[in-house]
Amino acid sequence: MSTEPDALPGAGTVMEGLELTDHHCHGVAASDLDRAGFEALATESNWPAPPGTSMFDSQLGFAIRRWCAPLLDLEPHAGPEDYLARRLQLGAGAVNRSLLSAAGIGTFLVDTGYRAEELTSPAQTAALAGGAAREIVRLEHVAEQVAAKGTTPPSFSADFAEALTRAAGDAAGLKSIAAYRCGLDFDPSPPTAREVELAAARWLGRLEAGGATPRIEDPVLLRNLLWTGLQLGRPIQFHTGYGDADVDLHRCNPLHLTGWLRATRGTGVPVMLLHCYPYHREAGYLAQVFPQVYVDVGLAVNHTGSRSPAVIAESLELTPFHKALFSTDAVGLAELHYLGAALFRRGFGGAAARWIDAGEWSMADAERVAALVGYRNAARVYGLDA
Amino acid sequence: MSTEPDALPGAGTVMEGLELTDHHCHGVAASDLDRAGFEALATESNWPAPPGTSMFDSQLGFAIRRWCAPLLDLEPHAGPEDYLARRLQLGAGAVNRSLLSAAGIGTFLVDTGYRAEELTSPAQTAALAGGAAREIVRLEHVAEQVAAKGTTPPSFSADFAEALTRAAGDAAGLKSIAAYRCGLDFDPSPPTAREVELAAARWLGRLEAGGATPRIEDPVLLRNLLWTGLQLGRPIQFHTGYGDADVDLHRCNPLHLTGWLRATRGTGVPVMLLHCYPYHREAGYLAQVFPQVYVDVGLAVNHTGSRSPAVIAESLELTPFHKALFSTDAVGLAELHYLGAALFRRGFGGAAARWIDAGEWSMADAERVAALVGYRNAARVYGLDA
Amino acid sequence: MSTEPDALPGAGTVMEGLELTDHHCHGVAASDLDRAGFEALATESNWPAPPGTSMFDSQLGFAIRRWCAPLLDLEPHAGPEDYLARRLQLGAGAVNRSLLSAAGIGTFLVDTGYRAEELTSPAQTAALAGGAAREIVRLEHVAEQVAAKGTTPPSFSADFAEALTRAAGDAAGLKSIAAYRCGLDFDPSPPTAREVELAAARWLGRLEAGGATPRIEDPVLLRNLLWTGLQLGRPIQFHTGYGDADVDLHRCNPLHLTGWLRATRGTGVPVMLLHCYPYHREAGYLAQVFPQVYVDVGLAVNHTGSRSPAVIAESLELTPFHKALFSTDAVGLAELHYLGAALFRRGFGGAAARWIDAGEWSMADAERVAALVGYRNAARVYGLDA
Repeated sequence: MSTEPDALPGAGTVMEGLELTDHHCHGVAASDLDRAGFEALATESNWPAPPGTSMFDSQLGFAIRRWCAPLLDLEPHAGPEDYLARRLQLGAGAVNRSLLSAAGIGTFLVDTGYRAEELTSPAQTAALAGGAAREIVRLEHVAEQVAAKGTTPPSFSADFAEALTRAAGDAAGLKSIAAYRCGLDFDPSPPTAREVELAAARWLGRLEAGGATPRIEDPVLLRNLLWTGLQLGRPIQFHTGYGDADVDLHRCNPLHLTGWLRATRGTGVPVMLLHCYPYHREAGYLAQVFPQVYVDVGLAVNHTGSRSPAVIAESLELTPFHKALFSTDAVGLAELHYLGAALFRRGFGGAAARWIDAGEWSMADAERVAALVGYRNAARVYGLDA
Repeated sequence: MSTEPDALPGAGTVMEGLELTDHHCHGVAASDLDRAGFEALATESNWPAPPGTSMFDSQLGFAIRRWCAPLLDLEPHAGPEDYLARRLQLGAGAVNRSLLSAAGIGTFLVDTGYRAEELTSPAQTAALAGGAAREIVRLEHVAEQVAAKGTTPPSFSADFAEALTRAAGDAAGLKSIAAYRCGLDFDPSPPTAREVELAAARWLGRLEAGGATPRIEDPVLLRNLLWTGLQLGRPIQFHTGYGDADVDLHRCNPLHLTGWLRATRGTGVPVMLLHCYPYHREAGYLAQVFPQVYVDVGLAVNHTGSRSPAVIAESLELTPFHKALFSTDAVGLAELHYLGAALFRRGFGGAAARWIDAGEWSMADAERVAALVGYRNAARVYGLDA
Repeated sequence: MSTEPDALPGAGTVMEGLELTDHHCHGVAASDLDRAGFEALATESNWPAPPGTSMFDSQLGFAIRRWCAPLLDLEPHAGPEDYLARRLQLGAGAVNRSLLSAAGIGTFLVDTGYRAEELTSPAQTAALAGGAAREIVRLEHVAEQVAAKGTTPPSFSADFAEALTRAAGDAAGLKSIAAYRCGLDFDPSPPTAREVELAAARWLGRLEAGGATPRIEDPVLLRNLLWTGLQLGRPIQFHTGYGDADVDLHRCNPLHLTGWLRATRGTGVPVMLLHCYPYHREAGYLAQVFPQVYVDVGLAVNHTGSRSPAVIAESLELTPFHKALFSTDAVGLAELHYLGAALFRRGFGGAAARWIDAGEWSMADAERVAALVGYRNAARVYGLDA
């Protein structure tokens, strides 16, 4: 069985040999996974499947068994038990190397603000794939570290700004998970210094009283992070759309950002809308009308599996081709990096092939757009060539 | 012309011979229908089509003429007048028997809280089909009967609980139409006893004053029904999405239930999201992340006719395969039971066939998922084997 | 290269020779366009594409290069520079005539309330195409003219009513852009005379103070325009869904009109939901359940280009076939009139052809529905035969 990602039928040729830039992903688990651990990473649910059922019975589960099994020298559609047994037999290291190097991803932009201690670092992730990595710094994670290390209400904003500048170092961009913490329907104006101080006092006071791990949820503080982040001038990624059971999905519609996009357009800072599903058409509208907005359908591609070509095609309706990016949003399982890339190649390549066959797109245009979406847009926006 | 539902082209083979469980439907009109009566049941509109137009000019109308006409020994695409004349000639009883027995549905879960007096009972419906039936008890209907029989504000809640327990008898589950009465964006917390008493006083006071048929609309009371219903431990169906002109469709997005699903997850009571269209992708998200959530696209399958394969395929994106169910939501017309089943077989079978042909799904997996969606998930969740 | 719109592959035959009625469009720019001017009309963005990118890299840009280039005697897929140079060489007049006459549109209903001074009039537009034109009067434009000419708070409502009656003359219908000005989630009840006077006083006072061009944005006044417009008894078009960066797209969901549709159903005035994307399924629901509601997917067809068949098919799910209409929403570029028609023929014709091939629709039904959607529904609703 070939380990070429283009081995997925229907990919056409426009994606052939194209080394992708994954502009949003995470590391992989370096240790071996039992069935519960594997299933937990193969769903966005925070709980196990009901008794008698399995997360393998999903589009993602079927795609893993179909497309990843052969890379572990199993038959396509190998059963879950066989798959997991083989994974243990080979060991996490070999599996990760095999899947990541087959993904055809040359550059990984890695969000280091989520479960970083359990996952491979950007450098380790890239090494497994034989590629390069750049960091994406999560705003909320930096703020929570500032709180954990000790700050005061009046100094919080400056302490955060300083910590962010330091953390950003040579990071490629920033990321906001305001969608998870307060929804995207937040006040689009910047909070005043006084508002931030009062909100910081409430938050830090609770932390002192309770001794809990800091979790930043106050919309005033989350807005402060965003407006501070804008000053760095680097692209800001936003979680939008589908995620785990912590989100109120209807408050993660990227359209809720419309006012904030108007308010911040003048800064020229690129805004990267991640995932977007099932609001990817709405995201396409934002990408067309706001010059600073970019979109991907990462996460949804993996989880919709055999339906991902439809999702990818829908994301290419209003989105100008200089505004669409590839990502996997893979986390924990190298299967997700591999599949995210393979399914994207298949989905984009298949759509392009149909449009070429129908005489609608020229081959030259399709190849140019494949390169834009595959890595050139990311290179331009994140300055990866520099 | 064959009466086999699999006669629809594109059904592939995975649905062949599979006896379905329709986990949400109603009875059929036992009496003959004139054109106005038939058209009224072939649309979700509460009013006739504009002058010079006909409800037959719709996806559902075309599907009836195409797929049901041959079962009445007419040519495919028979005109509306011919179809209705033949229907009258054969008589409602023969038509109902012919269509219902051709549907290939073995078990019907019948909502008895809507127009029950005009429609066949669960037992009658099942008898026409040669199958079995179980009842689904509509919470609001029971509450309105309690009000009609006489209750008092302080005793309403207990009277309802008692009536529900009695009505539930050996019913397979409960159903809420809160979507119709107050929208799904209700307060997810349980109302206090005092709040329920006050709300009952307002409602019962209006009934006494006005003498109208009781119609329960107060969100406090509707929440009380739900929290009381939870105590029975049986699956609760929710109308979500598309319905008639009484709904505010944007308030029927199942995502509005997110808070309530979080609040009630611990009870373990299965929540069955019905219809969902055009929010079936959002419903799929809920089914993936909440262990107790299940979805169908009944109603939409019939009304989208030749487009139903697309809707069915979309509903199979995020929904784990142990969480998707078949239903028709047929009401009044046996055409809807027959078509709902036939179109579902075609839509699911066709999608599976494409994925098998593309090497993405194995035949064994497809057959297993067909059985899950067709009847096994319903059997497990409603305890139908017991 | 044939100039027949049916030259697009996949159109099937049901659309052949069908002269369309474009029930919502604008005029074209009569003067030559440089690259910036052309790109600005080929997007809904209010700003140029980011440095190094082009609006030609979009589904619309690719469709123009593919389908319009041959009408200017260029090869399909001609480059943007070649296309624009050829356009200048031929001159705007020749280009407009060539594209408009190739569109196969017999009747144009032209919105004259937007950039009228820069665009061809209805008569000029029709003359270029060898067809006929009728006017659509934009409510807000008339109200702004009333303010500019001078009115008073107590007389505003009557002055508007009089101006509207005069402006409406033999117009085919009216149009509201409340979606742009306050969103569609406005109070569905009519404002009182006192409310209107107070709102007019605020608006007119600001105009006097500031000397700015009148722009009507107050929801009270916008509602007054609608309720006044209803009295003329002619169809009222609503912008819904996708538009430029001025809209809050989530407030342009046509479902927000549900209350207003209920409140005004009794008037019998047809309500024409324009564009609707990405809420065209929601619009289909409204068209099915409210007898006075009609829908199109103009604008979205052009901008989704090679994806437009999917959008058109989705719009034909719940919408009864006597409720769907063709439009282009073309503005400025004759390319948009031509493509809007050609892509619609291809999208509708292709869907019908697939359903005929699958035995789901009869050829006779498909031809009848093509005529309904192509021009008969418009003729009936707007009284164009009269």
